[in-house]
Amino acid sequence: MKKLSDIGEREAIRIISKILSKGDTALGDDCATLDMDEEHYLLVSTDMILQQTHIPQEMTPYEMGWFIVAVNLSDIASKGGIPIGVLLSLGLPREISEKFLKDLTKGADACAAEFGTYIVGGDTKEANEVTLCGTALGIVKKDEFMPRQGAKPGDTIAVTGELGKAGAGLLNLKNKILDKDLSKFLLQPIPRLKEGRVLAGQKCVTSCMDISDGLSSSLYQLKELNKTGFEIDLKNLPISSDLIAMGEKHSNLDVCSVALHFGGDYELLLTIPPEKFKQTREIMRENDLELIDVGRVIEDEKVILVENGRKKILENKGYEHFKKPFSSILPNLN
Amino acid sequence: MKKLSDIGEREAIRIISKILSKGDTALGDDCATLDMDEEHYLLVSTDMILQQTHIPQEMTPYEMGWFIVAVNLSDIASKGGIPIGVLLSLGLPREISEKFLKDLTKGADACAAEFGTYIVGGDTKEANEVTLCGTALGIVKKDEFMPRQGAKPGDTIAVTGELGKAGAGLLNLKNKILDKDLSKFLLQPIPRLKEGRVLAGQKCVTSCMDISDGLSSSLYQLKELNKTGFEIDLKNLPISSDLIAMGEKHSNLDVCSVALHFGGDYELLLTIPPEKFKQTREIMRENDLELIDVGRVIEDEKVILVENGRKKILENKGYEHFKKPFSSILPNLN
Repeated sequence: MKKLSDIGEREAIRIISKILSKGDTALGDDCATLDMDEEHYLLVSTDMILQQTHIPQEMTPYEMGWFIVAVNLSDIASKGGIPIGVLLSLGLPREISEKFLKDLTKGADACAAEFGTYIVGGDTKEANEVTLCGTALGIVKKDEFMPRQGAKPGDTIAVTGELGKAGAGLLNLKNKILDKDLSKFLLQPIPRLKEGRVLAGQKCVTSCMDISDGLSSSLYQLKELNKTGFEIDLKNLPISSDLIAMGEKHSNLDVCSVALHFGGDYELLLTIPPEKFKQTREIMRENDLELIDVGRVIEDEKVILVENGRKKILENKGYEHFKKPFSSILPNLN
Repeated sequence: MKKLSDIGEREAIRIISKILSKGDTALGDDCATLDMDEEHYLLVSTDMILQQTHIPQEMTPYEMGWFIVAVNLSDIASKGGIPIGVLLSLGLPREISEKFLKDLTKGADACAAEFGTYIVGGDTKEANEVTLCGTALGIVKKDEFMPRQGAKPGDTIAVTGELGKAGAGLLNLKNKILDKDLSKFLLQPIPRLKEGRVLAGQKCVTSCMDISDGLSSSLYQLKELNKTGFEIDLKNLPISSDLIAMGEKHSNLDVCSVALHFGGDYELLLTIPPEKFKQTREIMRENDLELIDVGRVIEDEKVILVENGRKKILENKGYEHFKKPFSSILPNLN
């Protein structure tokens, strides 16, 4: 009999989607969308993290609280939404200290407040390991909603910021390569809510998701949903300058591989008709936000990496639950 | 330093409430309430269950799916809401079979469909034990919302059905006392959505919650919130007939104790002005629903049990996370 480790997370989601009465439409996006009124969708996202599979041991309770709120708000951001509340379910071992609980709560509250919303409810339960499940709620005008599905051949592919920051953060945490603290990129990610709102307001984004699973994994997910291909040009990728600096110190660190495959960055990945790109980037700049052209949507259903002008298939090496451990994506440094 | 096992779940929630910017108002009820429009609240509830602390080993994957949806819908029911969607976060070990995943999904979908709603989204993650986190969404007219806080001295205390069904279910599962299957009361609870809607429509319920934590625990929670006392008359309690039949076979089974303290029944506990009670019960009966008068709200901030006409303090022996194991509430049978 097949196990989840044989089929992986993506196939598991397909199996679930086939069974549910609501069908595929419900589960193919970052958020569930419910009709709020004629003009607005209610957006709802839920995301769980668990100590042994997701939480680096260096993460403080404050950072855990921040993280679980941030990753849920990132799903609202990727649909162009405005957050209206966050709920937290905390599964905690009984030997956890009162201070741990307080710090965790402070981190969650600080992240919600930073992005203009509140923790509005939740649940606490006894668990064998720290288990945090968040639910974020948001609203978006129906005509500004940015779906995952809608990319067309010819569209420009863009990202909202540097890739590989979180990977650099984890590498530095484990190996102390650079004499600076990069851990916040990994442990206190910034949901791109402002970016999402400005982009949504332009009403020209044809597809959007966050790249928390890694760029390659995200492109494969968009390829499957959109029945189109994605071609990325390596020379245009905004690779984290910290990651590049690390690569200069460690010859066996494949900087591009970390930037392409390691997740945790929480930038937005989107497609946009080419004739709308420059104007949209201009408006993003006026708001002190970035929008970087990294490639284009193609007809051929493949994910292609252009490296020094030569095209090759970009493998799907991003993290996938059940199939492989998280750490397998990062190299051992010499 | 104090641990969660020292302070218990209720104190943990108080600590969280004090830290959160939104404050106490957010966390004292079964659901978070958000303004949807002038007339309606959006209700949101989240509830997590974990294999080792919450899931009896006899529970099938189908029942687990049903259960996590049912307990979240119960929170919507207790506020008078109409469910509009459920999200599920599944934390699953990698050695779980595909069949387990399918059965779990079928159970969740069946429960949502039974109560007129859908699974609209979710998340799957790798975990060391089965960890299920649900989020239920609902709507309720603001003037029909049934809060936890609002009980007044003199109000009639009522419940919507038998007490101790789930306890009888677990006892029978463990000891095979009666020659019938009672496990569904424990493993496939029925959220009292229909009851909640009819009650809410009467606009006279002064406080309401479900009794999933047990009657005594629920009364203590209402006492603390309402700054009033609660007096229950044992002779009026609708104790499960199956539980009573078990008591007749086992002399050391304290039937009343199970009915008063063991949770898992998911009936609604509510207060209602005495002059409105009969009419409300009549309307419930017209809808084939029960409403049973079990006592009255008193000024003295105590929880009192009247037994053979004599009053005594009803102890708070219900389940509380972190403080004691679930099984401690049920007796060992001779």
